[in-house]
Amino acid sequence: MAKRLIPLFNRVLVEKIVPPSKTTAGILLPEKSTKLNSGKVIAVGPGFHSKDGKLIPVAVKEGDTVLLPEYGGTEVKLDNKEYHLFRDDDILGTLHD
Amino acid sequence: MAKRLIPLFNRVLVEKIVPPSKTTAGILLPEKSTKLNSGKVIAVGPGFHSKDGKLIPVAVKEGDTVLLPEYGGTEVKLDNKEYHLFRDDDILGTLHD
Amino acid sequence: MAKRLIPLFNRVLVEKIVPPSKTTAGILLPEKSTKLNSGKVIAVGPGFHSKDGKLIPVAVKEGDTVLLPEYGGTEVKLDNKEYHLFRDDDILGTLHD
Amino acid sequence: MAKRLIPLFNRVLVEKIVPPSKTTAGILLPEKSTKLNSGKVIAVGPGFHSKDGKLIPVAVKEGDTVLLPEYGGTEVKLDNKEYHLFRDDDILGTLHD
Amino acid sequence: MAKRLIPLFNRVLVEKIVPPSKTTAGILLPEKSTKLNSGKVIAVGPGFHSKDGKLIPVAVKEGDTVLLPEYGGTEVKLDNKEYHLFRDDDILGTLHD
Amino acid sequence: MAKRLIPLFNRVLVEKIVPPSKTTAGILLPEKSTKLNSGKVIAVGPGFHSKDGKLIPVAVKEGDTVLLPEYGGTEVKLDNKEYHLFRDDDILGTLHD
Amino acid sequence: MAKRLIPLFNRVLVEKIVPPSKTTAGILLPEKSTKLNSGKVIAVGPGFHSKDGKLIPVAVKEGDTVLLPEYGGTEVKLDNKEYHLFRDDDILGTLHD
Repeated sequence: MAKRLIPLFNRVLVEKIVPPSKTTAGILLPEKSTKLNSGKVIAVGPGFHSKDGKLIPVAVKEGDTVLLPEYGGTEVKLDNKEYHLFRDDDILGTLHD
Repeated sequence: MAKRLIPLFNRVLVEKIVPPSKTTAGILLPEKSTKLNSGKVIAVGPGFHSKDGKLIPVAVKEGDTVLLPEYGGTEVKLDNKEYHLFRDDDILGTLHD
Repeated sequence: MAKRLIPLFNRVLVEKIVPPSKTTAGILLPEKSTKLNSGKVIAVGPGFHSKDGKLIPVAVKEGDTVLLPEYGGTEVKLDNKEYHLFRDDDILGTLHD
Repeated sequence: MAKRLIPLFNRVLVEKIVPPSKTTAGILLPEKSTKLNSGKVIAVGPGFHSKDGKLIPVAVKEGDTVLLPEYGGTEVKLDNKEYHLFRDDDILGTLHD
Repeated sequence: MAKRLIPLFNRVLVEKIVPPSKTTAGILLPEKSTKLNSGKVIAVGPGFHSKDGKLIPVAVKEGDTVLLPEYGGTEVKLDNKEYHLFRDDDILGTLHD
Repeated sequence: MAKRLIPLFNRVLVEKIVPPSKTTAGILLPEKSTKLNSGKVIAVGPGFHSKDGKLIPVAVKEGDTVLLPEYGGTEVKLDNKEYHLFRDDDILGTLHD
Repeated sequence: MAKRLIPLFNRVLVEKIVPPSKTTAGILLPEKSTKLNSGKVIAVGPGFHSKDGKLIPVAVKEGDTVLLPEYGGTEVKLDNKEYHLFRDDDILGTLHD
């Protein structure tokens, strides 16, 4: 039975996408392949309260493909699988076909 | 007779869960077992006042199973038992079956 | 005749409790006894003004038993007796039987 | 098929303009050519929420020619082409004929 | 003829009280006498404007006896007499008989 | 054909004024001539949004003669001519005859 | 013909007062004469906008005699005469007979 993690505040649980070493389409990184990181959003937090007490929702949603920063994020292992937690404002953008 | 600690502001009193060394279900950490920390919330503070004077309640509640950061927290001993105090925004998420 | 100190803003005047070296009940620190500090609140300030000009009252009150951080606080001597001043947000929690 | 990146918050996706080594008109950099960087805005984020929860839109728009800071920005490769991500407040200005 | 200083913002002009070397009553510092500093408030500023433009008055008033921090404050000489200027939030509390 | 730069946010495009080495009138710097910098405002940004989302206009306007800080500013070359970009709050004042 | 400087934001243009080396009345600094600095306010800025967009006026006015901090301020030369620019919150107080 799997454990499920619900992030707190504006945190986002991401499963990193391992890029194919040979191109098909989309993201292609023949050299310097560590420069781009993408991932799939598994779960998002409820957002956080602004200084006025208003709830600011998280900027991405479950299922989004996201562009991740080269560094940062907290590694988390759930049921032997590796995930990463990011604050939504550390995520650079969403990727679309 | 036991002493009871009520945390102040957005602090959370947590009892760390020692992971089983052999798998049953749920969190499994065969290698690099120091990477994941979970705990049970024993008590939470009343929240803290935003810069506008509004009370922001604590994001977790008593009884929650929480994912803790690898570092941080203040060790507290009450009746010979070890606990940790965290600010709620240092807690990464809640764990659910 | 004793001098009385009324703290300013969110400061709290605390008299530290010296833990008994042998257990009766409550706080027990057989080893690493410097890890826990508790104290009795002697006086509190009026609170401080938030950035909006609202008065945020102090989170503890006279007579509370409080859990103090391991470091910090300002030592004050009044009538030959030693006290400590803390900002209320440096105080970790209140202790109850 | 190309992947499309939609930046988050106030981020701006820019394709840098390689200045001609000989002058025609406009930007001319005979010596110290690294001093000026311009780029074309490919995509912009939705803006970000101010501390009051109001959405502040991004200060540039798709198609703008922008003056970039000498340093900074995050290199991103999409379909083998190099782009840069900037926060809009790191962009110095817009260039017009 | 004496010059008079009116502090700006939340500044407080203080004349330090030199503690008697032998006890009468009140503050007594047989050893480590540098640990406690008290002073008399000579003049206070009008307060300062919060980020919302509201005027926050100074927390002490002329004539108050105050407990000063061990370090800090700006030495000022007026008519050959030594005073100190403090921000009111650096003053620890007020002393009363 | 010249390229025109419109600064973003509260940035100000300035053309530095080279002081005459011999006095006529106005700014005179016989020794330590690097101490004073003045410039002419060529273009200003639209201002920036305060934390409440209000637009704060730029404090100087096109054509103003301004006193610049000794250090800072970003050098920009447009059509082979050298300009500097400053945040308006780095500009010290305006100069008038 | 003299150039006139109007400071920006909450800046204050000050002409330092050179204290007499022998006492008449007022400020007297027989030893450690660098400890006190006073000046005359020549011009003040319009104030600055708070984070809510409200204009906070400058705390001193033209003609005031002010107590200056020992360090800080920006030296400015206008028509061969030396002045200093200070932010109004760096000025310690106003001096009155």
